[in-house]
Amino acid sequence: MSSVACIFCRIIKGEIPSIKLFESEKTLAFLDINPLSKGHSLIIPKYHGKHITDIPDDHLLEVLSVTKRIARAVGAENFNVLQNNGRIAHQMVDHVHFHMIPKPNEEEGLGIGWPMQEPGTEKLKALGEEIKAKM
Amino acid sequence: MSSVACIFCRIIKGEIPSIKLFESEKTLAFLDINPLSKGHSLIIPKYHGKHITDIPDDHLLEVLSVTKRIARAVGAENFNVLQNNGRIAHQMVDHVHFHMIPKPNEEEGLGIGWPMQEPGTEKLKALGEEIKAKM
Repeated sequence: MSSVACIFCRIIKGEIPSIKLFESEKTLAFLDINPLSKGHSLIIPKYHGKHITDIPDDHLLEVLSVTKRIARAVGAENFNVLQNNGRIAHQMVDHVHFHMIPKPNEEEGLGIGWPMQEPGTEKLKALGEEIKAKM
Repeated sequence: MSSVACIFCRIIKGEIPSIKLFESEKTLAFLDINPLSKGHSLIIPKYHGKHITDIPDDHLLEVLSVTKRIARAVGAENFNVLQNNGRIAHQMVDHVHFHMIPKPNEEEGLGIGWPMQEPGTEKLKALGEEIKAKM
């Protein structure tokens, strides 16, 4: 499954150049051209879909293994693995992609805001039941 | 492989309570007790390791599939999947965990800082060769 208009599908087809790090039947990895830090890479299923929930499981099986291999090869001691779903969640290209972003220091790499909530145990228990019922 | 001092290993063993959403031989998922948004969940390999690079591939195979199932059950339209490696990268518990964080609006959910760099194609090509040689 592939989309004519999708920039990542065009990278997969070789219509747009990229600096590839890994390629297999179902997976591609390449350097982000606007990295947040040295070694910032993208790991993608070749299967076109916007959100991770759109990608069949068997097209995701290699993703974390390849992410590990790249993190090791980059020599990233500290790093974030991030996959965004939806514009408000900072997704800029509508083809599922996993970022491997080295975090060498406070300034470079991913910046994280963590606005914690305290819903309390009772509310969480009820929510847990609600979610489990839908799984 | 398990660690006596690790809070997530103790959750796996049932020594510390949690609101479980999914459990299999190798994988556990439960609600984050200090969520960034409603439905914020943690998906972890039971195998103890600090960084994703410490976890054997076969202990990671189910993680994204379970993440998808939870995102669907929560009904998260927009969400981030995040896995942090190292304190500077915002890892707070030293047992690999994947966050599934719904992003219902600007205020709730993960905050993201994106300090893009522009290294240029030549530098990136050289880096790509360097990384590939180590993979």
